[in-house]
Amino acid sequence: MTKGDIMTIKDSLKIKQPEKVEDVITNFIKDSVSKFHRDGAIIGLSGGIDSALAALLTVKALGKENVIALFMPERDSSPKSEKDAMLVANSLNINLKKVNLTPILNEIGVYKLEPSPRFIPRGIQEKYVLSKYKKFQDENETTFLKSLKGGEGIDELKRGIAYHRIKHRLRMVMWYYYAELYNYLVIGCCNKTEKLTGYFVKYGDSGSDIDSIAALYKTQVKELARFIGVPEQIIEKSPSPDLMPGMIDEFALQMKYENLDMILYGFEHKIPEAEIEKEAGVTPKDINYVKQLMDLSRHMREIPPSPDLKDLL
Amino acid sequence: MTKGDIMTIKDSLKIKQPEKVEDVITNFIKDSVSKFHRDGAIIGLSGGIDSALAALLTVKALGKENVIALFMPERDSSPKSEKDAMLVANSLNINLKKVNLTPILNEIGVYKLEPSPRFIPRGIQEKYVLSKYKKFQDENETTFLKSLKGGEGIDELKRGIAYHRIKHRLRMVMWYYYAELYNYLVIGCCNKTEKLTGYFVKYGDSGSDIDSIAALYKTQVKELARFIGVPEQIIEKSPSPDLMPGMIDEFALQMKYENLDMILYGFEHKIPEAEIEKEAGVTPKDINYVKQLMDLSRHMREIPPSPDLKDLL
Repeated sequence: MTKGDIMTIKDSLKIKQPEKVEDVITNFIKDSVSKFHRDGAIIGLSGGIDSALAALLTVKALGKENVIALFMPERDSSPKSEKDAMLVANSLNINLKKVNLTPILNEIGVYKLEPSPRFIPRGIQEKYVLSKYKKFQDENETTFLKSLKGGEGIDELKRGIAYHRIKHRLRMVMWYYYAELYNYLVIGCCNKTEKLTGYFVKYGDSGSDIDSIAALYKTQVKELARFIGVPEQIIEKSPSPDLMPGMIDEFALQMKYENLDMILYGFEHKIPEAEIEKEAGVTPKDINYVKQLMDLSRHMREIPPSPDLKDLL
Repeated sequence: MTKGDIMTIKDSLKIKQPEKVEDVITNFIKDSVSKFHRDGAIIGLSGGIDSALAALLTVKALGKENVIALFMPERDSSPKSEKDAMLVANSLNINLKKVNLTPILNEIGVYKLEPSPRFIPRGIQEKYVLSKYKKFQDENETTFLKSLKGGEGIDELKRGIAYHRIKHRLRMVMWYYYAELYNYLVIGCCNKTEKLTGYFVKYGDSGSDIDSIAALYKTQVKELARFIGVPEQIIEKSPSPDLMPGMIDEFALQMKYENLDMILYGFEHKIPEAEIEKEAGVTPKDINYVKQLMDLSRHMREIPPSPDLKDLL
């Protein structure tokens, strides 16, 4: 497993003591509920692995009677997501409260931004989304990078950004609505890979009281999920934001999570770039891309800055 | 103005160089727009002094053609707020885009939590709100303090919390929706007094890209607003959250801003409590109350915490 004394990045990323990791996280969730003066916790289940793992840890920490799970589909959600969210809820023996966001998004007028998919088979919708997304990409910048820069003046891309981000923000609004009705803590499910690359929505899916799994890279989420017993079909499916038909994370990011995590781990541990390139099998262009994502998303990980008036007041 | 070499808290709070404060803030706004790769700025106008001051500073920084102002009333908003927001927009010569939140809140079902005010005169609505709010108060804790603790098990209070906070969160959602369509920066209008006491909604009115006036206490906002030329009737009206008929800030907080700011300034500058009490004309109980507000709202000023796994990963 090691090269002499030096572990490879791939080996270093492996979780050595999953039972201890589980303990620290569940204790953290339990302590947070009391620190925040809350009576339980609320969690959004998307049908994906991150929220499944976070839900399992939350139920272990607090007991199923103190956890509310919300599932919030809308017009463009994959029909499979509901089955997967139900599978997770059933495996935990908790109720899944379903809130349909479609009428709310309709009322706001969001769906007017994109053609109606009614009567169009899902497969064709998916092709449409992927080709549209790819259209904005050029050899220097991925569509995702451009979206972190606000769409670079491309109106169609700006509409796309507004169109999908509002869905995550509305979910946050509904988490807190129920959280406040019950005095429950909102459990966040963003992982470290998303957090560092800006692959989340500011005041959307990152809008929570605590970040339960933000200390884990995506590949570590998968490992811990398997250790702790998340249903295998949730672990094995391609991670997706489920905001646009057909879009999956690795297509949006234009990079495999395995490579991305090795690069991020390399940066975190100040490993020379040449070594990261070799171990992760990536190019200097890939390294530079990830640096740009980290830089452009910094404001999404910080509290809003305010002017410095300390010498004047 | 001074006692020997030592300025009183009241004197210290006064802004000595308002033109420099104005400069620093407008430069900060201008720099932020370019740092965030944005093409302009969006700001919510409530009809109150904070958003009026922030809007003036933003227009000074960017020019009126690069600023969008949003006004978002709903069922319970005071009719006066729209006139005041219009007054501010007109004085700046900018358009005021109105988004009515009532149908969206209706669709979510929020209004079912409180009796319909239809056909009930506003004056009676206001009395109802104030008496209801006062009902939750006891000699040890204000209603506001209880709300920071999640309502302390009182169902009616929890419903009230959910009922009013969702309005601010939806406004944030709409700020970002338009901000993303135009690639504009979201300008926050929370002041330092609100920020320190938790008198704002997490991921609601505090959900912005920059905090334009968060370095100013409420009494300093009033001073700068007057210096910079916010219409006098906006400066002179009682600050209000405009979430419930009749509710004003000083009633909700159960303390005058003048006293509150002196206490907060005293804490900030490590002035002995006995001195703060004397200068601000407050009691040890008041001091303790403000300390509790600061403590209970700390999580609202920080990014969500996550478990510490650094020794395990």
